[in-house]
Amino acid sequence: MSGLPYLSHEAGFTDRGITKAGKLLGNWKEGDASGIGLIGVPLSKPSISHSGASFAPQTIRKMMNSFTTYSIQDDMDIQPITDFGDITMHVTDLSDSIRRIEETAAGILNRHTDILPIFLGGDHSVTAPLFKSFKEARGKAGIIQFDAHHDLRNLEDGGPSNGTPFRQLIEKGVLEGKHLHQIGIRNFSNGKAYTDYGKQHGVHIYTMQDVYETGILTILETAVHELLKETDQIYVSLDMDVMDQAFAPGCPAIGPGGMDARMLIEAMRFLGETPQVKALDIVEIDPAVDFRDMTSRLAAHAILTFLSGYQTRK
Amino acid sequence: MSGLPYLSHEAGFTDRGITKAGKLLGNWKEGDASGIGLIGVPLSKPSISHSGASFAPQTIRKMMNSFTTYSIQDDMDIQPITDFGDITMHVTDLSDSIRRIEETAAGILNRHTDILPIFLGGDHSVTAPLFKSFKEARGKAGIIQFDAHHDLRNLEDGGPSNGTPFRQLIEKGVLEGKHLHQIGIRNFSNGKAYTDYGKQHGVHIYTMQDVYETGILTILETAVHELLKETDQIYVSLDMDVMDQAFAPGCPAIGPGGMDARMLIEAMRFLGETPQVKALDIVEIDPAVDFRDMTSRLAAHAILTFLSGYQTRK
Amino acid sequence: MSGLPYLSHEAGFTDRGITKAGKLLGNWKEGDASGIGLIGVPLSKPSISHSGASFAPQTIRKMMNSFTTYSIQDDMDIQPITDFGDITMHVTDLSDSIRRIEETAAGILNRHTDILPIFLGGDHSVTAPLFKSFKEARGKAGIIQFDAHHDLRNLEDGGPSNGTPFRQLIEKGVLEGKHLHQIGIRNFSNGKAYTDYGKQHGVHIYTMQDVYETGILTILETAVHELLKETDQIYVSLDMDVMDQAFAPGCPAIGPGGMDARMLIEAMRFLGETPQVKALDIVEIDPAVDFRDMTSRLAAHAILTFLSGYQTRK
Amino acid sequence: MSGLPYLSHEAGFTDRGITKAGKLLGNWKEGDASGIGLIGVPLSKPSISHSGASFAPQTIRKMMNSFTTYSIQDDMDIQPITDFGDITMHVTDLSDSIRRIEETAAGILNRHTDILPIFLGGDHSVTAPLFKSFKEARGKAGIIQFDAHHDLRNLEDGGPSNGTPFRQLIEKGVLEGKHLHQIGIRNFSNGKAYTDYGKQHGVHIYTMQDVYETGILTILETAVHELLKETDQIYVSLDMDVMDQAFAPGCPAIGPGGMDARMLIEAMRFLGETPQVKALDIVEIDPAVDFRDMTSRLAAHAILTFLSGYQTRK
Amino acid sequence: MSGLPYLSHEAGFTDRGITKAGKLLGNWKEGDASGIGLIGVPLSKPSISHSGASFAPQTIRKMMNSFTTYSIQDDMDIQPITDFGDITMHVTDLSDSIRRIEETAAGILNRHTDILPIFLGGDHSVTAPLFKSFKEARGKAGIIQFDAHHDLRNLEDGGPSNGTPFRQLIEKGVLEGKHLHQIGIRNFSNGKAYTDYGKQHGVHIYTMQDVYETGILTILETAVHELLKETDQIYVSLDMDVMDQAFAPGCPAIGPGGMDARMLIEAMRFLGETPQVKALDIVEIDPAVDFRDMTSRLAAHAILTFLSGYQTRK
Amino acid sequence: MSGLPYLSHEAGFTDRGITKAGKLLGNWKEGDASGIGLIGVPLSKPSISHSGASFAPQTIRKMMNSFTTYSIQDDMDIQPITDFGDITMHVTDLSDSIRRIEETAAGILNRHTDILPIFLGGDHSVTAPLFKSFKEARGKAGIIQFDAHHDLRNLEDGGPSNGTPFRQLIEKGVLEGKHLHQIGIRNFSNGKAYTDYGKQHGVHIYTMQDVYETGILTILETAVHELLKETDQIYVSLDMDVMDQAFAPGCPAIGPGGMDARMLIEAMRFLGETPQVKALDIVEIDPAVDFRDMTSRLAAHAILTFLSGYQTRK
Ligand SMILES: [Ca+2]
Ligand SMILES: [Ca+2]
Ligand SMILES: [Ca+2]
Ligand SMILES: [Ca+2]
Ligand SMILES: [Ca+2]
Ligand SMILES: [Ca+2]
Ligand SMILES: [Ca+2]
Ligand SMILES: [Ca+2]
Ligand SMILES: [Ca+2]
Ligand SMILES: [Ca+2]
Ligand SMILES: [Ca+2]
Ligand SMILES: [Ca+2]
Repeated sequence: MSGLPYLSHEAGFTDRGITKAGKLLGNWKEGDASGIGLIGVPLSKPSISHSGASFAPQTIRKMMNSFTTYSIQDDMDIQPITDFGDITMHVTDLSDSIRRIEETAAGILNRHTDILPIFLGGDHSVTAPLFKSFKEARGKAGIIQFDAHHDLRNLEDGGPSNGTPFRQLIEKGVLEGKHLHQIGIRNFSNGKAYTDYGKQHGVHIYTMQDVYETGILTILETAVHELLKETDQIYVSLDMDVMDQAFAPGCPAIGPGGMDARMLIEAMRFLGETPQVKALDIVEIDPAVDFRDMTSRLAAHAILTFLSGYQTRK
Repeated sequence: MSGLPYLSHEAGFTDRGITKAGKLLGNWKEGDASGIGLIGVPLSKPSISHSGASFAPQTIRKMMNSFTTYSIQDDMDIQPITDFGDITMHVTDLSDSIRRIEETAAGILNRHTDILPIFLGGDHSVTAPLFKSFKEARGKAGIIQFDAHHDLRNLEDGGPSNGTPFRQLIEKGVLEGKHLHQIGIRNFSNGKAYTDYGKQHGVHIYTMQDVYETGILTILETAVHELLKETDQIYVSLDMDVMDQAFAPGCPAIGPGGMDARMLIEAMRFLGETPQVKALDIVEIDPAVDFRDMTSRLAAHAILTFLSGYQTRK
Repeated sequence: MSGLPYLSHEAGFTDRGITKAGKLLGNWKEGDASGIGLIGVPLSKPSISHSGASFAPQTIRKMMNSFTTYSIQDDMDIQPITDFGDITMHVTDLSDSIRRIEETAAGILNRHTDILPIFLGGDHSVTAPLFKSFKEARGKAGIIQFDAHHDLRNLEDGGPSNGTPFRQLIEKGVLEGKHLHQIGIRNFSNGKAYTDYGKQHGVHIYTMQDVYETGILTILETAVHELLKETDQIYVSLDMDVMDQAFAPGCPAIGPGGMDARMLIEAMRFLGETPQVKALDIVEIDPAVDFRDMTSRLAAHAILTFLSGYQTRK
Repeated sequence: MSGLPYLSHEAGFTDRGITKAGKLLGNWKEGDASGIGLIGVPLSKPSISHSGASFAPQTIRKMMNSFTTYSIQDDMDIQPITDFGDITMHVTDLSDSIRRIEETAAGILNRHTDILPIFLGGDHSVTAPLFKSFKEARGKAGIIQFDAHHDLRNLEDGGPSNGTPFRQLIEKGVLEGKHLHQIGIRNFSNGKAYTDYGKQHGVHIYTMQDVYETGILTILETAVHELLKETDQIYVSLDMDVMDQAFAPGCPAIGPGGMDARMLIEAMRFLGETPQVKALDIVEIDPAVDFRDMTSRLAAHAILTFLSGYQTRK
Repeated sequence: MSGLPYLSHEAGFTDRGITKAGKLLGNWKEGDASGIGLIGVPLSKPSISHSGASFAPQTIRKMMNSFTTYSIQDDMDIQPITDFGDITMHVTDLSDSIRRIEETAAGILNRHTDILPIFLGGDHSVTAPLFKSFKEARGKAGIIQFDAHHDLRNLEDGGPSNGTPFRQLIEKGVLEGKHLHQIGIRNFSNGKAYTDYGKQHGVHIYTMQDVYETGILTILETAVHELLKETDQIYVSLDMDVMDQAFAPGCPAIGPGGMDARMLIEAMRFLGETPQVKALDIVEIDPAVDFRDMTSRLAAHAILTFLSGYQTRK
Repeated sequence: MSGLPYLSHEAGFTDRGITKAGKLLGNWKEGDASGIGLIGVPLSKPSISHSGASFAPQTIRKMMNSFTTYSIQDDMDIQPITDFGDITMHVTDLSDSIRRIEETAAGILNRHTDILPIFLGGDHSVTAPLFKSFKEARGKAGIIQFDAHHDLRNLEDGGPSNGTPFRQLIEKGVLEGKHLHQIGIRNFSNGKAYTDYGKQHGVHIYTMQDVYETGILTILETAVHELLKETDQIYVSLDMDVMDQAFAPGCPAIGPGGMDARMLIEAMRFLGETPQVKALDIVEIDPAVDFRDMTSRLAAHAILTFLSGYQTRK
């Protein structure tokens, strides 16, 4: 602004040699888009327990500004991505919110066939409409799910909640059980009925003990290999509660004995590099109970790591 | 327990000269009931903003144990009351939750015609089904509402939320506007469209400025007097955000310039004493954001003060 | 957005009957401006004690969205105001930051001669350059300062800090002591040397005891009357630590025995109505140590109250 | 330090015109002492509920540094006082700790007959040994107790706890009931058995309702007048939970409907001025649960206000 | 409840396929008992530093509801256990509390000779009376202690505290030093005098460096092997501060460089499987200073892991 | 104190067999000094983001009292060290504060040629003046820097801040780039311009990925070996944000994917043992945002570990 050079609507110091990762997000304004697309899905009212996961899209975006665009590991800057904004939810009609998610995701995926979407939940209930739209728009697909929980609960007791998305997909025939790989499933965090349900439907289940013993990369290589035998692309669903509570203290369902930060970073890098990974969601972060936004920081770092892998794809 | 005298499933020290107010709550087990009945209504998913008000019934009950049964002002002990427990809500179907509230309140009020119910919300959305059942079971009734907000929002934009209960009641013909007295309405906390709506429907509106200038007891005397000209009984709805944020820091919508603790205590005493007050709800306390359960402590104290007045009724 | 109606870069529910006060802020984009102008002055490194007051401009703006535009007391909506953004500060050169404040304020006040500026600090060090520019641009002016402290400390020990702004103005001849009215000065919060300095320079000092005994409005009427005998306009400087710690827990220098919310609201209304009040700053709020942004909420409410008074000016 | 002028074992900025009130505390080192003496009594294990009141002496001392020595109301600086340090408690033998308190208080009071002691608890259990030693050393004395609670519980159920000090004193014949004035006793915070006990023993009980209606100063004038009919001096015991929870959020037993900061300041001033007030204790502050040490700040301010009154004594 | 199906005194959603682990706890009501018995020992007043460990039994029980009964690793549900409740402590007589613990533990262990007790402290002082009763009731026994500290302090300076339980046992001849294996002892967390005492008495000391280098399972195998050469059964005492502060932030004496969650889980599984492990206590969790009950969650998970191992015993 | 044996100005329990590490700090009082010297450098106003790192010297000293002097690993007590106190900073003139640091460090290092200084920041801006004085006083030296960030930012945009110390040293010719080894540099935490600058100047950069893959001790051995080829001594600069946020939650710039506590402890031991390590600073801890002083506890433990290694030097 001529004459008033210090006035700015974006507060704060700017250093010419640093680009904050928040600057990667360019608001979508109709028209074409390709590459990575960020879509906020701030829905957490379907959660079984109290959840402020609807705050996560804004918090994760904000935490992008705690990082830079530069991957020293690759000597490379991350490229800009398209921020489609958030899907506005209905205040009281949760099924309408689900419909809005499905419709909006479909709209984006059908219009922008090159976009690799990164969906920021929200609770895990959003994965059901998101994957449904993804598959309808993009074709045969499987899922790699990071989670302490199966999320295969019955639909009678509480309706379509954050405990049911994969059950919904299987029951509606959108997803075959065998095209679902669950990683990090934890002891004393699930019901036998649902593990049995998973097994009966051919779901591939890797417990945290498996992760400890086999290693996260070996498991991911197996999962990708298995999925690509029968599907063309992979949707990754990252429920942040797969992490040990020390590393992700801001999930609604925290607990001990999960993954550490290094494991997650290695996993996200691998999946970013894998050409058939075509969608990612990150869910179950409740900024209202976190400590210093640690969990959203981890999510932002995970996204950037994924993007660094993505840029190495041919 | 013979031989193991120190084992107990209720931890803690007991003093023979003190009865904790939590002991007043006797679990209802079918059968007759009269006097005061406590019913938890742990619903807060209809809230426009993030709300953990569903935690309040349990927290208020727990805070009862921070008080005793003894009113030194009256040299009198509060008498036991019937605790009906909480209404179990649906996880994802909010309209079913509203139905459960309406049906359960009706069931209690019809069976136990002498019960004066104290409903512990939950957010303010619960008042619509509660008052509807109350009026159907008990007959002609008006409302005294303590609130910073009108809660007369339109029903199209977000459905029946914590911003709409009195609008719902008026639109459904359950409540005439003139039978609604709103006390503590605050500047910069409402929209002109809804103040206009209230005025058009004859709602009696007392702002905080009115409370400061006229005094809470004078206003209440007027309101009771006016209501009893046309109705037989009064339902009191206490939205805790009528308080200044210094005194009730745990409401979702806190702000400055509200009532202080003394005003509330005087009001609750007066209403307790007033024979035509036949129901009370306390809503909009979110224990998840409170400081040391201050707001739930205030609610528990308000209930006990109401009960002390109630016991002076003939 | 055609076809994707639920996507938005501004998250959250919109109600047609409510306008959030945050919507009042329209970003200034060069060109003319009149009425009220908001300018963020995020400087707190000059503070004697640790202070995150530089976060306050953004937090107060955000808290504007916890209020609506509607004054029920006046049956009137607050009119839009111009948000000039924040002044970017130097990271390490504090005197350059002071220079930027002075230069930017001068630029705005000289260009936009009708603008009544509301400056959001920052700590109290910002008042020295702000008032200097204000007086140079607008002419003869006095100050009404709400504060627990004189802020008349010597300049040798620590340089121009948040403890010195009014001393600086007096020593530089920008302000005559008798044109400074300090309200709310508190026991055990000042040094005798500085009270003496104030008295020697004719500063009008009203202690909290005076406020309790005389009443805030009577004091303000006196102060305005006295100031207008010799000056043409009044700059109001509101150091939020004039409040009792229960009402403004987020100031760096909290303590007991200050003003309550009602007093502040009445004061801001009166000053808003007073035609000769031509500038306002609000300083010494540290959002990093506040509880639920209570102090910024109070500041936002104070601004709206001031604006409601302002709109009644002829 | 010659040559290294900036090194200091006391961190922080020093302003020549300000003396922090913490500087008033001079460590006692054997030898004579007169005037005000500060003695820390960090005992809270006798508390019925979990209490970190043993942290309060150090926290209150630290909060003295948030204030200055200057009373603007009197245009006077507070004079230095003798800090006797803290009484070291036994880790596991609570009766030995009580013995240490009694013995140490006796030692100080007998040696230094001019010392007016200010005891910093600890929980209220410390008042029993303190008053006992005080009376034995100094002669006939009565007590003004600020408290939401009687502290007249029976001694069988839990032994000599923070609920029993005044009962202990009465039962041991150290204190006649009629020489005890309890101010601020609150509804739903006591048991009828103990109010009855108080009445039977002639204890003067002023409830918060009395304080609201009669005014704190009128009550204090009455209490002092009554006490001085039969005793020669007054011991003041300030249980900080006499305050409303908004003003003293860091007491173990917080609740609504108590005193505000202005009332306490006025009371402490009056008692400071009253020549027959010869001892003061401040108890029941738990810094571990406070917000920003608000309650310890209030205690420090109360002490300074008391001292300002004390300096006006002839 | 007929006609009022939604009323419940246990709030919350129930899913037919999930059993919360809290449901495993069945209140003991006189009569026979076998298998696992839970006994709360809410004593923390003997602690050297401020401790709210007396809150832990209730918090750990509550956190059981954050887990399910299902061990996916074993495809097995955990079986119900007997909850004996908590031992009521004396308010002020700590030695009487110790007596109550000893007497109650003896009562349970003598009556119910098949019960494997899990004691929930409380601070570490409870282990002295617990082990004494255990040994007297059940015969020759050794101890595996997880701890950053020896807890072999002298008994003169502070009496029987949380720093002395194993010294007490050795000095009273209840435990031979060589029958004590201490695992996880940390640098800069002990005094040489006490390490020397341990060595002189033949205590087996494994430092955290040993745990890092040798591995927790190898150490445990050695310890069990050694103990069973001379004793018949093993009492495990888990002081949660053996964990690194990142994994157990809610212990009174947190610090860096301890065990991680995986190590603890593996240890608890191994000890659960070991048939000669006949008692377990978990101590030194202070819920009042924890973050989101992380440390109690870890304790609950540890218990469930232990139970899963226990169910594999023949 | 004869006759008053329980009075003490140092509160708290003393155990004859334990020496708290805080007791190691003996205040320097002019005169000779050798061995380890502690110097507080409480400056954080130069920080780019809000930082309370100026509180760290006092907090780290206080946390020393959470540890003992005894290294069980070495069966050895740590020897006393000289505490020179803190350097008093200017309130508003940051360059004068830098001058004071440089001058004071020079004074100490020149007078006490045997002192190995441990500097407690403060933010990382303090390393520039500290190393300059160190090199001038002691001769040829290189740096091992633990950090997530290069701190090689340009000096034009914000002046000499906590992002620039090593750039300043290189540009002023105080340090050759090749004599700087940076360990733990993290992805998405730096700008390519500054990595390039580092490479161009021969800075040795080890990323966290290198630390994961190569091991911290191997890297340190290499770094020491390289440095000692060309310099005589090593200055270690520990920016605590090199740690994963789970282990050091109190740094201004926390993030995932850093070092864990064990790595740091091993590193500090190695460096303590290395005879050519002649200075250490610890920076970037902000106690105002930490959880239970975890990060200061880690710093205190790191210092003690360093000292334990130091005592093994010949
Ligand atoms: Ca999930
Ligand atoms: Ca999950
Ligand atoms: Ca409402
Ligand atoms: Ca409301
Ligand atoms: Ca000021
Ligand atoms: Ca001030
Ligand atoms: Ca008391
Ligand atoms: Ca009390
Ligand atoms: Ca222990
Ligand atoms: Ca321990
Ligand atoms: Ca750095
Ligand atoms: Ca850094």
